[in-house]
Amino acid sequence: MDAIEVIVAKRDGRELTRAQIDWVIDAYTKGEVADEQMSSLAMAILLNGMDRREIADWTQAMIRSGERMDWSSLDRPTADKHSTGGVGDKITLPLAPLVAACGAYVPQLSGRGLGHTGGTLDKLESIPGWRASLSNDEMLAVLRGAGAVVCAAGSGLAPADKKLYALRDVTGTVEAIPLIASSIMSKKIAEGTGSLVLDVKVGSGAFMKTTERARELAETMVALGTDAGVRTVALLTAMDTPLGLAVGNAVEVQESVEVLAGGGPADVVELTVRLAREMLEAAGISGKDPADALADGSAMDAWRRMITAQGGDPSAPLPTAAESSVVTAPATGVLSRLDAYAVGLAAWRLGAGRARQGDPVSFGAGITLHAKPGDAVKEGQPLLTLHADDPGRFGRALEALEGGYAVGEAVADRLPLPLVIDRITP
Amino acid sequence: MDAIEVIVAKRDGRELTRAQIDWVIDAYTKGEVADEQMSSLAMAILLNGMDRREIADWTQAMIRSGERMDWSSLDRPTADKHSTGGVGDKITLPLAPLVAACGAYVPQLSGRGLGHTGGTLDKLESIPGWRASLSNDEMLAVLRGAGAVVCAAGSGLAPADKKLYALRDVTGTVEAIPLIASSIMSKKIAEGTGSLVLDVKVGSGAFMKTTERARELAETMVALGTDAGVRTVALLTAMDTPLGLAVGNAVEVQESVEVLAGGGPADVVELTVRLAREMLEAAGISGKDPADALADGSAMDAWRRMITAQGGDPSAPLPTAAESSVVTAPATGVLSRLDAYAVGLAAWRLGAGRARQGDPVSFGAGITLHAKPGDAVKEGQPLLTLHADDPGRFGRALEALEGGYAVGEAVADRLPLPLVIDRITP
Repeated sequence: MDAIEVIVAKRDGRELTRAQIDWVIDAYTKGEVADEQMSSLAMAILLNGMDRREIADWTQAMIRSGERMDWSSLDRPTADKHSTGGVGDKITLPLAPLVAACGAYVPQLSGRGLGHTGGTLDKLESIPGWRASLSNDEMLAVLRGAGAVVCAAGSGLAPADKKLYALRDVTGTVEAIPLIASSIMSKKIAEGTGSLVLDVKVGSGAFMKTTERARELAETMVALGTDAGVRTVALLTAMDTPLGLAVGNAVEVQESVEVLAGGGPADVVELTVRLAREMLEAAGISGKDPADALADGSAMDAWRRMITAQGGDPSAPLPTAAESSVVTAPATGVLSRLDAYAVGLAAWRLGAGRARQGDPVSFGAGITLHAKPGDAVKEGQPLLTLHADDPGRFGRALEALEGGYAVGEAVADRLPLPLVIDRITP
Repeated sequence: MDAIEVIVAKRDGRELTRAQIDWVIDAYTKGEVADEQMSSLAMAILLNGMDRREIADWTQAMIRSGERMDWSSLDRPTADKHSTGGVGDKITLPLAPLVAACGAYVPQLSGRGLGHTGGTLDKLESIPGWRASLSNDEMLAVLRGAGAVVCAAGSGLAPADKKLYALRDVTGTVEAIPLIASSIMSKKIAEGTGSLVLDVKVGSGAFMKTTERARELAETMVALGTDAGVRTVALLTAMDTPLGLAVGNAVEVQESVEVLAGGGPADVVELTVRLAREMLEAAGISGKDPADALADGSAMDAWRRMITAQGGDPSAPLPTAAESSVVTAPATGVLSRLDAYAVGLAAWRLGAGRARQGDPVSFGAGITLHAKPGDAVKEGQPLLTLHADDPGRFGRALEALEGGYAVGEAVADRLPLPLVIDRITP
């Protein structure tokens, strides 16, 4: 077999055989198929598609490129959640300890931010002392002790995916649904979770701009998980405006702690509780209401155990940015629009995100919101506060926000998306 | 501008702007756009196409990546021919001196064989002492002295094309008509010829298997040449069976010399004379009949001057292969089929071609034909003689020929293609 044979088959619209898929993933991982061959194949896949069988074979081949974790020594079911990424999406932070407090183990491998969406690990690293990198043994110890662990995926998990993901990022081939679905699911299946809830974001701040594309991705991933023996369900949720009132790193940790303390913005609480219920149901755990675990402090206790077990000090003050700049309402009326992408891009430019893999992020940088779409506002009142270490960053952040918000007589011509748009089951 | 922007535009079916094309070709030549980005773009071009304006801009950008030759110091018009490659296609060898003998200058930059089609330079190198690599000054001196020069393109000519061609070869993106057309025409336009005749081959032994694809390629190239101020015409010619009776290197030189001596197989003579007439017409030269120049020895004189000027000895014996093997007719009847691809593949396996760029070729290896489709044959009479330096090569060559020829009661169900199928003008 050779790379050209596989590329030409997909280029000419044929289905790839399992043998072709196994060979090309293995040879690419070993460096025998070159980057320029894999990127050409990725473009052919993006334009000509793959059917469900091909995507399943592709995912399994990526799983087999590395190790597979095993939680069978644990005495309670495991549950995980994956979000396709959004602006202000700190849900993992309150959710993991909340679900642990309700009786499941939550082994959550997370990523770092790239572009306008933040990364869970970047947010947690704003907590003094907290470590994202754990050995498999440390991960198991944190899980046993705290019920939840959020950490970076080790290099042994789906190495083919790591290599392919970095390649897609520079070759215009990120947007292929078969490749997105197999990338996410290969890591989640290799991670060994027994059940999985997918939060597929829809809207300007999401990777999937339309409900149709998001539904296609969700259905593909639910099928892949189910075929691999993972109880999988997906929610399509709104990402046309940021989640909550904080976008950045430390500011999102602060808001997550408020939720765990029984407060916090209504949308963050609603989505956290809804996802927790889905995770518990998928894990087969009944009789516990996550809303109670937020109210009675048991979720907060799990959070403190989890942060402490990973070297963090949950009581330490969080970093703040040295400089701030306030954006005020241009008129009196109703905030009719606050665009997730514009806010995410502005937060990125303030230093909360990174332009390239390996760049540092500013923990204090970000944006706090003083109003959400539908809120009444008065001319001159603060709408947003921008935070940055360097005031030279405000200019380009304000440019990103231009046209990203509007005050009108009522909420814009179309109603905002409902928070939970749909639920996708096998 | 960045590579991803250009890739995504073509991926999403948009026209590339001239600025995008200029930037991406220039940056790729400099190494600022990576191979894996260019291959992804090439696949998007293959699947989504380019319009005439984009192809013209792409071609011009490749020309500008290097030097442009200039023959304005010559006192007679220049004419060149390019063939898309076939089996037994030695036409350049008699054609270049023939057209020179009729009054044009023929500056012909040629290539080496790869795969089942032979290369003009490999064939000429079987002449003892002959050199393919000339400096620009040497090329001009040979042209002035002999009227024709056949040599390798220097590294300064369309370097973007050289790099892209090597990349396409390993990434399944060879078959894109916009990229084939711009690759051929960028070199031919940069070479500085005033007129150009394209011999676009059609059939099993050709790159274009159907008349439709060949016509599309020919029309694209004629338009590109015309737009660039080169008087360009194309012939679509048959490549379902080999040209002439010799396939290889030295055996094709031998056949070419027979044509120059006024003999040779009818199809080689017919195509040589037809292409010579087209070249003279395109160059604006009238009053000379190429058939006369073959008959009166003036073409042979030009050949001897050309070979001698490039260090070759036109009287030296040509290399022969040590071993031979004869394929005989399986029945008495009419040779109904002799497939160009099968014969080309067999000759390649005998050592006449190379598997990889830079591999050596055997000058003596090849195939001589003893019958052409339509000829009456008797059971047991020789059909083909295979020549190789190493008798171990006969096995796989014979496998390549299996099913590649047939003896029937008459020529097969469909008539063979006429030698010249069509003529494409601006």
